[in-house]
Amino acid sequence: MENNTRYASGLRTMEELFPQEVRNGMKEMKNISPDLWEMIVAFGFGDLYSRKTLSLAQREIVTITTLITQGAFDQLKVHLHGALKVGLTKEEIIEIIIHCIGYVGFPKAVQAMGIAGEIFKETE
Amino acid sequence: MENNTRYASGLRTMEELFPQEVRNGMKEMKNISPDLWEMIVAFGFGDLYSRKTLSLAQREIVTITTLITQGAFDQLKVHLHGALKVGLTKEEIIEIIIHCIGYVGFPKAVQAMGIAGEIFKETE
Amino acid sequence: MENNTRYASGLRTMEELFPQEVRNGMKEMKNISPDLWEMIVAFGFGDLYSRKTLSLAQREIVTITTLITQGAFDQLKVHLHGALKVGLTKEEIIEIIIHCIGYVGFPKAVQAMGIAGEIFKETE
Amino acid sequence: MENNTRYASGLRTMEELFPQEVRNGMKEMKNISPDLWEMIVAFGFGDLYSRKTLSLAQREIVTITTLITQGAFDQLKVHLHGALKVGLTKEEIIEIIIHCIGYVGFPKAVQAMGIAGEIFKETE
Amino acid sequence: MENNTRYASGLRTMEELFPQEVRNGMKEMKNISPDLWEMIVAFGFGDLYSRKTLSLAQREIVTITTLITQGAFDQLKVHLHGALKVGLTKEEIIEIIIHCIGYVGFPKAVQAMGIAGEIFKETE
Amino acid sequence: MENNTRYASGLRTMEELFPQEVRNGMKEMKNISPDLWEMIVAFGFGDLYSRKTLSLAQREIVTITTLITQGAFDQLKVHLHGALKVGLTKEEIIEIIIHCIGYVGFPKAVQAMGIAGEIFKETE
Repeated sequence: MENNTRYASGLRTMEELFPQEVRNGMKEMKNISPDLWEMIVAFGFGDLYSRKTLSLAQREIVTITTLITQGAFDQLKVHLHGALKVGLTKEEIIEIIIHCIGYVGFPKAVQAMGIAGEIFKETE
Repeated sequence: MENNTRYASGLRTMEELFPQEVRNGMKEMKNISPDLWEMIVAFGFGDLYSRKTLSLAQREIVTITTLITQGAFDQLKVHLHGALKVGLTKEEIIEIIIHCIGYVGFPKAVQAMGIAGEIFKETE
Repeated sequence: MENNTRYASGLRTMEELFPQEVRNGMKEMKNISPDLWEMIVAFGFGDLYSRKTLSLAQREIVTITTLITQGAFDQLKVHLHGALKVGLTKEEIIEIIIHCIGYVGFPKAVQAMGIAGEIFKETE
Repeated sequence: MENNTRYASGLRTMEELFPQEVRNGMKEMKNISPDLWEMIVAFGFGDLYSRKTLSLAQREIVTITTLITQGAFDQLKVHLHGALKVGLTKEEIIEIIIHCIGYVGFPKAVQAMGIAGEIFKETE
Repeated sequence: MENNTRYASGLRTMEELFPQEVRNGMKEMKNISPDLWEMIVAFGFGDLYSRKTLSLAQREIVTITTLITQGAFDQLKVHLHGALKVGLTKEEIIEIIIHCIGYVGFPKAVQAMGIAGEIFKETE
Repeated sequence: MENNTRYASGLRTMEELFPQEVRNGMKEMKNISPDLWEMIVAFGFGDLYSRKTLSLAQREIVTITTLITQGAFDQLKVHLHGALKVGLTKEEIIEIIIHCIGYVGFPKAVQAMGIAGEIFKETE
């Protein structure tokens, strides 16, 4: 796959994943570092998210889990929007966070649940 | 749910999740600390894994992801056996690891893939 | 110990540990996820904090140290209130943070000390 | 090297590293814990940063990288000022962050790049 | 405190903390990097461990907790010997590990308990 | 840059970076997951390491630092070979590890120095 194709494929996957408004926020990175932006789209969403074998909903289960585990709560907000858009329910998201207690302890689970509560309110 | 019930429910879920041999290995913890063992079974597998809303296969996606992210590679071995037993395919497991590259970088993905390769060989 | 007992025991330990105001803040989690709240109380404060062998002051030494190490600074605030309530002195808390330098480096120690400074002012 | 010398040497290195304003901000720690402050200066900047073999610019490459990797973004701000002062260019700093993608994933790289963008604006 | 004094004070504290055999193992670092060794003794055990306000037993509670949290299991072995030497009981060490479940999850607690089990056997 | 070019560029950079023997070891990944291998080469060494602005020696300073910080000691071995090959001296590598003490604490620095000691012996 040529690079233009990788980038185009990444953009298409981002449209499936995120509401317009969330994508606009992400795109601000393009002004700070066009190279980082290109890699996010072409590698992150093109090479990784556009692969087969796992659905986008399954990929968001992976993404949400790794973000909780590493304490990347700003990115968690973005991907909770993504998770809801590709069909995970609020109940499933809550369940992922609860399952994580046994692997990361309460502090990160509590932090994640607080953020999920906010996003759920916004998107009601 | 009373504690005996929580423990019994955890044991049942462990039987669904892990081959006998793997469970025997885990049970060695009972000799070192019976209290930790009781919590693993009653809280970990009883309260957490026995909940509804997510299937055991989905729960293993969460588990594998958090273990890769925190570099808990000994536990990853155990749960790769679990993942295969509850129906994740080798292709899906490989795909989870590849998806993680964008979130944890290559070193942990490479480490995890090496371990997956070993487990896949053992279970062929 | 039956579940009602575990929950009741957790609530009692929380009363020993935290001032009313701090507990009210924690309880907001009940609205977002009653199940997470139940686990915090029954497992976290019931099964873990209510055990013997270590005093609550010793338990807060463990808690403060793990929170600093994992960079969970929001939870650190909560447990600095707890630590003071169960009898750790400001000098001892400062000393825990300084001891951690050798294990987590300056950035987390500096972050933790800044937060301790705020809490100490509030509670003067 | 006697302790007074270690402290004096640390102060000199801090003057080389940070603009006056940044040093003033750091010095607030002296009021919260004079002992932590003494160790920051005598050990951190005296014993470590004042050593030979690596230039201050090379040391800031190390520092920025470890701060990104551990998600210590408040300290990253401080050391981006330091990095610019000892001669790293904006292009080099952006390049360090991009190189890190392969080792820590996108979330921390994006977070770091956002902060770098802010600091670059302030210092234009 | 002059540097010779810091080093001497570190050595004295190490004698209180570790059995001869453990100290011999640690001292191998002196051959690889005499400078790192000097800092371990003068800063780590001299400046940090030799301070007042916390007892050596309390300091080992902090140390064991941070090592479990960051997954530094080789160093955990060393400090479990230290913890036993300065008076923590096996029951207290087990209790620290169990308390940590709520903050770091099961994988690190299980790993730590396995190591504690080995050390306890060796020192019986 | 088309994908074949990215892959070819990655292979060229790997030749500059690693001795033949080390590359052979890395290439075993190709048998477990050809897709992960392709990404390591095309994205990791092609898109990231082959960029300008930083020299390969500077890139290895970044790499070594992030690996120490995240405790990825198996990968550290590989990149210590790389660091020596692209011109970092043993003294500089030791100095990077010592600088890290202030940011990650002694346990990871000690672990890294032990590994560096082994690699230095092998390559004498």
